[in-house]
Amino acid sequence: MVGANIVSSERPRRLRLGMVGGGNDAFIGAVHRTAARIDDHFTLLAGALSSTPSRSRESGEALGLDRVYDDYKQMAIREARLKAGVEVVAIVTPNDSHYPIAREFLRRGIHVICDKPLTSTLDDANKLLKTVNNNKAIFVLSHNYTCYPLIRQAREMVTSGYLGQIRVVQVEYVQDWLTEVVNNKQAEWRTDPMRSGEGGAIGDIGTHAYNLVRFVTGLKVEQVSADLQAFVVGRLLDDNAHVMLRFEDGVRGMLWASQVAPGNENGLRLRVYGDKGGIEWAQEEPNLMWYTPYGCSTRKITRNCAETLEAANRLSRIPPGHPEGYLEGFANLYSEAAAAIRAFDRGEKVPLSVTYPTVQDGLDGMRFISACVKSSRGNSRWVKID
Amino acid sequence: MVGANIVSSERPRRLRLGMVGGGNDAFIGAVHRTAARIDDHFTLLAGALSSTPSRSRESGEALGLDRVYDDYKQMAIREARLKAGVEVVAIVTPNDSHYPIAREFLRRGIHVICDKPLTSTLDDANKLLKTVNNNKAIFVLSHNYTCYPLIRQAREMVTSGYLGQIRVVQVEYVQDWLTEVVNNKQAEWRTDPMRSGEGGAIGDIGTHAYNLVRFVTGLKVEQVSADLQAFVVGRLLDDNAHVMLRFEDGVRGMLWASQVAPGNENGLRLRVYGDKGGIEWAQEEPNLMWYTPYGCSTRKITRNCAETLEAANRLSRIPPGHPEGYLEGFANLYSEAAAAIRAFDRGEKVPLSVTYPTVQDGLDGMRFISACVKSSRGNSRWVKID
Amino acid sequence: MVGANIVSSERPRRLRLGMVGGGNDAFIGAVHRTAARIDDHFTLLAGALSSTPSRSRESGEALGLDRVYDDYKQMAIREARLKAGVEVVAIVTPNDSHYPIAREFLRRGIHVICDKPLTSTLDDANKLLKTVNNNKAIFVLSHNYTCYPLIRQAREMVTSGYLGQIRVVQVEYVQDWLTEVVNNKQAEWRTDPMRSGEGGAIGDIGTHAYNLVRFVTGLKVEQVSADLQAFVVGRLLDDNAHVMLRFEDGVRGMLWASQVAPGNENGLRLRVYGDKGGIEWAQEEPNLMWYTPYGCSTRKITRNCAETLEAANRLSRIPPGHPEGYLEGFANLYSEAAAAIRAFDRGEKVPLSVTYPTVQDGLDGMRFISACVKSSRGNSRWVKID
Amino acid sequence: MVGANIVSSERPRRLRLGMVGGGNDAFIGAVHRTAARIDDHFTLLAGALSSTPSRSRESGEALGLDRVYDDYKQMAIREARLKAGVEVVAIVTPNDSHYPIAREFLRRGIHVICDKPLTSTLDDANKLLKTVNNNKAIFVLSHNYTCYPLIRQAREMVTSGYLGQIRVVQVEYVQDWLTEVVNNKQAEWRTDPMRSGEGGAIGDIGTHAYNLVRFVTGLKVEQVSADLQAFVVGRLLDDNAHVMLRFEDGVRGMLWASQVAPGNENGLRLRVYGDKGGIEWAQEEPNLMWYTPYGCSTRKITRNCAETLEAANRLSRIPPGHPEGYLEGFANLYSEAAAAIRAFDRGEKVPLSVTYPTVQDGLDGMRFISACVKSSRGNSRWVKID
Repeated sequence: MVGANIVSSERPRRLRLGMVGGGNDAFIGAVHRTAARIDDHFTLLAGALSSTPSRSRESGEALGLDRVYDDYKQMAIREARLKAGVEVVAIVTPNDSHYPIAREFLRRGIHVICDKPLTSTLDDANKLLKTVNNNKAIFVLSHNYTCYPLIRQAREMVTSGYLGQIRVVQVEYVQDWLTEVVNNKQAEWRTDPMRSGEGGAIGDIGTHAYNLVRFVTGLKVEQVSADLQAFVVGRLLDDNAHVMLRFEDGVRGMLWASQVAPGNENGLRLRVYGDKGGIEWAQEEPNLMWYTPYGCSTRKITRNCAETLEAANRLSRIPPGHPEGYLEGFANLYSEAAAAIRAFDRGEKVPLSVTYPTVQDGLDGMRFISACVKSSRGNSRWVKID
Repeated sequence: MVGANIVSSERPRRLRLGMVGGGNDAFIGAVHRTAARIDDHFTLLAGALSSTPSRSRESGEALGLDRVYDDYKQMAIREARLKAGVEVVAIVTPNDSHYPIAREFLRRGIHVICDKPLTSTLDDANKLLKTVNNNKAIFVLSHNYTCYPLIRQAREMVTSGYLGQIRVVQVEYVQDWLTEVVNNKQAEWRTDPMRSGEGGAIGDIGTHAYNLVRFVTGLKVEQVSADLQAFVVGRLLDDNAHVMLRFEDGVRGMLWASQVAPGNENGLRLRVYGDKGGIEWAQEEPNLMWYTPYGCSTRKITRNCAETLEAANRLSRIPPGHPEGYLEGFANLYSEAAAAIRAFDRGEKVPLSVTYPTVQDGLDGMRFISACVKSSRGNSRWVKID
Repeated sequence: MVGANIVSSERPRRLRLGMVGGGNDAFIGAVHRTAARIDDHFTLLAGALSSTPSRSRESGEALGLDRVYDDYKQMAIREARLKAGVEVVAIVTPNDSHYPIAREFLRRGIHVICDKPLTSTLDDANKLLKTVNNNKAIFVLSHNYTCYPLIRQAREMVTSGYLGQIRVVQVEYVQDWLTEVVNNKQAEWRTDPMRSGEGGAIGDIGTHAYNLVRFVTGLKVEQVSADLQAFVVGRLLDDNAHVMLRFEDGVRGMLWASQVAPGNENGLRLRVYGDKGGIEWAQEEPNLMWYTPYGCSTRKITRNCAETLEAANRLSRIPPGHPEGYLEGFANLYSEAAAAIRAFDRGEKVPLSVTYPTVQDGLDGMRFISACVKSSRGNSRWVKID
Repeated sequence: MVGANIVSSERPRRLRLGMVGGGNDAFIGAVHRTAARIDDHFTLLAGALSSTPSRSRESGEALGLDRVYDDYKQMAIREARLKAGVEVVAIVTPNDSHYPIAREFLRRGIHVICDKPLTSTLDDANKLLKTVNNNKAIFVLSHNYTCYPLIRQAREMVTSGYLGQIRVVQVEYVQDWLTEVVNNKQAEWRTDPMRSGEGGAIGDIGTHAYNLVRFVTGLKVEQVSADLQAFVVGRLLDDNAHVMLRFEDGVRGMLWASQVAPGNENGLRLRVYGDKGGIEWAQEEPNLMWYTPYGCSTRKITRNCAETLEAANRLSRIPPGHPEGYLEGFANLYSEAAAAIRAFDRGEKVPLSVTYPTVQDGLDGMRFISACVKSSRGNSRWVKID
């Protein structure tokens, strides 16, 4: 076995973590918990795991939590008073509750790791931004895909000029699980405007794609022209979204988000082209990236190989050929959060190498959703993202 | 070796073929000649291979032609008078000359196989349509990609309801050969509005993509919203085109055509999704298609395998696992042309199974180019294709 | 996000884990620790992390262990006396020390999770088998690849007759990290006969391949014919191994293990063919398996999809399209170990669905190494594995 | 469309071609005829297409041949006397008739393109070698896979030292069409020892694999250790073959040939590893090759790209991204044959760049079959290929 550079999971003290949402049958809650464990920076101690108190208690017991609360407000108040209360809370509830929940913790100096998209309304998003700015705590948004090592590699390559002047960006996030009417809990709130907000696929997964593009290229999207559809009869939010993008500096792009494309499981795929080269990456095979210097053969860059850069390698645990996946990518988000929180708590600046999606990124995503919906309602006219 | 169903290349008499354009260093001329030979339905006898008489003669000699002409008009006149003159002519010149050349042959009852796109102007395209309608001859447009066996399979599957109600279509045709300023003959006329027409990438390759979508789905595109760019400084025509599509019946699509995306050689790729399934096919791996019946695992359909349909198998020569390629696909176009011409010459209807791109398809493509250019100039407003 | 079936990581009480070996710069120690954390069945409390006491202490401190020991014997004695001493120990040292270490713990009723291959000599392996049989403790060997969900799928499919009567098995485990002389710690002991045993590549990775074949097919390998080479000058153990296999029931196979094949990172790949179908799986893309029912198109089976079986799904955390990787596979080994230990400690039988590699599998692997070496020395004559 | 280098199909005069075998429903006959047409170096004029005179005539008529014969001997005699008789004959009959047929033509100075394997017995093979040596004519064996452009690339790379000192070769040729008892004509003679010879899969496809290895590496195989099986009940010849190879210079290899591996259509795949790099190529995706310089990322080399060598490009017709396939590879064999024959007829040496499989290669293949059968019967003992 080749020498490895597993992310050093050994740290002086684990951060005390709480969780709001994520009760027994929730998907993303369990993902957050696993991600928090992988690199051993956190101990989950307390939670308000469901808005139904009995379910919260049941779930908390099952998880062996020290302290289980009936509601998040109570939790924020009490934890803040405890000497060894939680230092950071993961919010894994539907979008419409992100802002009120985050507010309670942030104003008490408890750091927040919040599920995406930021909120269900632009108004809430703006308020949350202010709340973060007015309080002394770290806020991390779970755009987990930015934490895949090869996405860091892509970003570093763009920044360092490997692709030359960027010209064209193609991004898509394609699933098929809403091809028909679905009645489970996951589907229910994600297709409900009251809880999800005005975006369906464009909000749930389109913002991931948008965020990924922004993260990798560093380019601002100035305008969007969107055509959103709800194909399934009775669905109130879009389940398929076509968007043309105009970036700063004349860069052009397309974004496709869909939850009704049979054969696609979790098809987030990014392609970036400049005048000196192109790259291609897909989430379902996250351990490799295709890189073509213009005029040369395409290179298969594998995670943690001899040709990857430090920005990618620092988030890599094991040697190439030993696949890391979605949970490790998500764990990287938690490890970045831990690094940021620790620096913050020491009164230091977050190291430059540490990067995580911020409330500003979340607001940017909300503006993107809003602009897309506006454009689509305006017969796809170009709408500025301000 | 497994039993094969090679396309029966054995026919009573070869059709007498002429060629206009396709002199010594032309790419597509040699492709047409090879395609015409593969299934042995044609003998190339005469040509006006270049607008420069000396080059025409040189090229004709090199090819061992019986009769070489200084110009196409002279050729049309004389061949029409010969008892054993050419019955069909391949036109492989730049777009602006397609109409005048085709006219000379068609009006003399000589069948035409013409390179795409149809013409350089919509006006010429309309005239050519009339010319075809007013004369008794077959006109075949070289949208060769419609003749790949698995594209026929895709079409048959859509028609037969394998995918259910179609909802979303994604098509792209991506190359990188114009990433920088290129000065060879191929690049020169393709980026010259006077010879190519108003479309650059959208004309040269975008029409292939558009035609493929139309062919496979059978759906009319009603409106386009386009954003065309010329990234290379000094280039007069688009080298990258983003287009949103609105089909009849509420179907939606996206089309991306680019000649400036490093790492892409000839990346024509089609994805079609309905409420019962999805398919995916890429020209660079033409011997396989991915098919997912919704809720089931994805099937790898190989050319000529146990699960392909007669519409695909009839254009297949050799067993699965023995790859056919671009030239065989192009040869299928010639074989379809031969079948049509033979039926026509016998005074019979062209058999239903025989399919080829017509002048109407060519006009449709020209309208697509025109609508895209109009939309792009109108800040991507939706423009009807009428 | 589609409804998920993340492995329930919620358990009444975590098992107390110790570790022998796995000091600061060891690869596999960190892998074991991460794997133990992922599903939250274990807490690492104590260790003898290096044979050098100062390094053991340093490493233990870095890991925040409660109890750090200078040597494993001391650790076994003391932990066995503690009321809340470790219940299970992970042994992640070079092969030659597996037996003596395991013995100390097993005889004190402490369960063992031991790195592969079992020992460095067949003699030690036999002794270890006896030790396990004579004591009351679970022994788990870290053939982690058997815990990938789709390997469980493969096994279940073979057992259930999807492939019919098995005929041919092809397995390979190919790396390139020893292509040249390598001087790091990993390489050093793995190429040292005193610590590794008589097998080089055939021991380090060949046994993984062998074990995988045995696990998936359930078939006994009766004879091997091997041709082992050490290509790098001065290397004392094989770095490339070619083996022909004769299984019971007339089944035939080939096994290739190499550490000198440039371009291969961790290429463990299994193909099994019967008279009704075939399957293919590769460790570097562990989330998919190719399955061909004879006469039909090949199916792409993805982890946790609609067509996977319970035996695979129970080891799957997240939905298809969200890749799990090497660490999750390894975590499954720990989760299986936890389930077995818990049943054992309750005095119950290990549930039938719970499967893990045993000391018997380890002995079988040692016999395989021995037979290969004997065959190779005997000019590749067939040698029985008894 | 990028500038192309289509194989110049323009030649002063086509060679007059005859065919023995290849009647109406034969697979390989039609392949030879198409291959001969693609680059336009040949005109098929005469044939003895079946051993049944009436079928020969029928088939000849269908093909529009000028001269059809009842048997090959008659054909050889008469054609040799004609002023414009055939100059070269393609022999596409079962293996046992290759020698007597070839002899009749060669002794009359008519060049031969003969299907593989060379003969059905080693004795015939030796006689055929003598016949070729004693007569003045070119003899080409249809190991068509050596004519794929990227196989030429591979060979040139090995020769030029891209891979350094070769160490390990892995080759496999895997199909599934004989998984069950098959009763068609193709299957019938290929599983009949009287017509095929002593090798089943090892002869029909194993020799292709063996020849490919020899061609690409230039290395002599000194010894083989083989384990041949006939899995289908009642089958007289092997349908699965496992072979270990010992080359000169200590190079080692494995060869697997199978016709009973469900999911494999025509899986010829070659991997070569040296101390400086490795390559991998598969016939089903012949337009790309993977090349890894040791310590660097893997390169995707596409046919006719900027990084391919002249030895590959000279057999390439169209630009990268425009797939060529099996028939083009076979056409390259015919083009090489034409070049050789033309040089021969001019009394010149065959140019060094022109390469084709010879009678000597055919004899080498027969010796390989013989050695494998002998080894397998001798319990896989190592047998020399002399």
